[in-house]
Amino acid sequence: MTNVPFDRRKLERLLSQSGMDLVLANSRHNVRYLTGGYYYHFHAVSSRMDHSRYIPFVGIIRGKLPDSFYVCRHEERDQLATEDLWISQCVEAVRGTQPTAERLIESIKAHGLARGTIGVEMPFLPADIYRALTETLPEARFLDATAMLESLRAVKGRAEVEQVRSVYSRAAESVQAAFSQSGEGDSTSLIESRVRVEMAKRGLTFLFALVSAGPGFSRAPSDSDRWEKGQILHIDAGGEDKGYVADICRTGCLGEPSKLARELHKACLAVQDATRAVIRAGVPASKVLEAGTRAAERSEYSDYVRFVVHGTGMVPHEQPRFSLDEQRPLEAGMVVSIETDFLHPDVGHLKIEEAAVVTRDGSESLGELSRQWSIQ
Amino acid sequence: MTNVPFDRRKLERLLSQSGMDLVLANSRHNVRYLTGGYYYHFHAVSSRMDHSRYIPFVGIIRGKLPDSFYVCRHEERDQLATEDLWISQCVEAVRGTQPTAERLIESIKAHGLARGTIGVEMPFLPADIYRALTETLPEARFLDATAMLESLRAVKGRAEVEQVRSVYSRAAESVQAAFSQSGEGDSTSLIESRVRVEMAKRGLTFLFALVSAGPGFSRAPSDSDRWEKGQILHIDAGGEDKGYVADICRTGCLGEPSKLARELHKACLAVQDATRAVIRAGVPASKVLEAGTRAAERSEYSDYVRFVVHGTGMVPHEQPRFSLDEQRPLEAGMVVSIETDFLHPDVGHLKIEEAAVVTRDGSESLGELSRQWSIQ
Repeated sequence: MTNVPFDRRKLERLLSQSGMDLVLANSRHNVRYLTGGYYYHFHAVSSRMDHSRYIPFVGIIRGKLPDSFYVCRHEERDQLATEDLWISQCVEAVRGTQPTAERLIESIKAHGLARGTIGVEMPFLPADIYRALTETLPEARFLDATAMLESLRAVKGRAEVEQVRSVYSRAAESVQAAFSQSGEGDSTSLIESRVRVEMAKRGLTFLFALVSAGPGFSRAPSDSDRWEKGQILHIDAGGEDKGYVADICRTGCLGEPSKLARELHKACLAVQDATRAVIRAGVPASKVLEAGTRAAERSEYSDYVRFVVHGTGMVPHEQPRFSLDEQRPLEAGMVVSIETDFLHPDVGHLKIEEAAVVTRDGSESLGELSRQWSIQ
Repeated sequence: MTNVPFDRRKLERLLSQSGMDLVLANSRHNVRYLTGGYYYHFHAVSSRMDHSRYIPFVGIIRGKLPDSFYVCRHEERDQLATEDLWISQCVEAVRGTQPTAERLIESIKAHGLARGTIGVEMPFLPADIYRALTETLPEARFLDATAMLESLRAVKGRAEVEQVRSVYSRAAESVQAAFSQSGEGDSTSLIESRVRVEMAKRGLTFLFALVSAGPGFSRAPSDSDRWEKGQILHIDAGGEDKGYVADICRTGCLGEPSKLARELHKACLAVQDATRAVIRAGVPASKVLEAGTRAAERSEYSDYVRFVVHGTGMVPHEQPRFSLDEQRPLEAGMVVSIETDFLHPDVGHLKIEEAAVVTRDGSESLGELSRQWSIQ
């Protein structure tokens, strides 16, 4: 049990604060996080099977880390044999939610927690498993552990930052490659499919690509929306590897952008840079939001601007949270994504989204590639 | 409402038989099925966001098809505008399970169904939405609609068969391309990544690739398992497009296969062909299972054989169901997948999986490409 991948003291503290005796994680991202990267590859994209679905559980007991257990399928043995999981107790269940619930309940009872307070991921837990848990363990109390697990993940360790950096670089390269393959008359759905291929080439799971050809504002890939001479186009794409996500947006133009488009792009980068300038460990999240919002409002084109800043990592929007009353300071190792959009009726939807890791002295860019115009 | 994509009489009959006044579908496959192919592209691969997730609902009321509704996000408008959805009533909800549950409950009440019998997909419904439904609508009765919806989907229409055929062809081509790019010393994880790229090139969402290099039996892609001279290798891969899945397995060899490997492969095809020979509309599912099992048992290598036959379509294992007491006859338009495995200690895991559409007179192959040896 030497390779526990998360901050165990922090987890113990969070379990105590929330009063949980046991936390059960079943979402893909939290299973990966708590195991240190493991997820059954056969169901990593789709879980559905027969009348039910694949569902794994990681169970961690407060004050008893060595008693942690993993409820899984027999068929995972091949893959488990290739990994060095810190959780040694694997409880095998037959495929499907109901057999899995049975083994899960046995494990809860075996650990003497039938009357305990149990954290579950309510938005990710299947209803039939929830029903089995509450009916079979009527004296247990069930709480939503989603926010608690998000807090556990908020500060990324060195290996995680490396992984996030790698995912962002590959996502930025994929978007750049899609731009350079695209030209006059290409539909936005064709451009989306290029992002999909370029991500696969780089070992990323494609999540989405919003593609918008100006001057319209639609971002849904479509066979009828086409990129034409002089038009701007943005690609806002998400990719994932081992549970870590990248979400970036770049803007290009077919031929030279108009003067107005250039000014909007410049204004976009100015808002991004003003936001980046205040990010560093110790700064309250509210200050970052304030700096970006003020820069956006100062812009000559502020009537058209939209500014958003959010934390990211394994979930596209996660901690740190940014609101004007959020006084909690940023910490080194948090990952922040900054989005500036200008929606101008004569130009279209111009957008840049970039991410950075918070450091002690400032922040480090992720996937910085081609934040300038991609001119084809 | 002219473009209802499913058999509405069959749905009415299934709703009556199960006593459901309303069915609510939220799984990706059933949302696609009931809308006629639509799913919000932004969340088609991953639904997680903030402390919660994206979740859509299609609601269909017994005897009142025109009152069907779709609970979705405001942001889907761009994409909805490009589609010709038969459901005209879109109920927009703020992101997340709880706001979605609120709008869903309002819709149920507005249709006078607060005391109705409501079908939900229990293994796919988030626990917090289930809790909100049962607590806010204490007089409603909730049933699992998973099996009922599977029955609705069991027989594929012409357009669906075309889609299944296309997905199988592209999956078979992807596997063939991965074989032809692979050679001595390649790891099974490298070969898996080639399947991923080849599927992306063909517009498929990669689901999985189990890769097994003989004589070992492990099928989990690994950096340390390598394909070496004279060894067999199988690729068992799944891909998806618009909700329809293909799952095929092909076996190859690096250099000439041994005599024993050739015999096992021949035995594999013999079992496949014997099973295929009895498939046609009107034949009870049990007869198909019997024919395959008997052929497997007759094989000289029956000690090493494993035989499985299952229905497929949107869910990797769905109707028709095959068991020795299943007397229901196959129907034209059902899709059947046949798997024969030989696990021989001296050769490895040799496997062929193929699918076919049931027709009036027999069956039509899907993705038949390269069922013979892929010799590199």
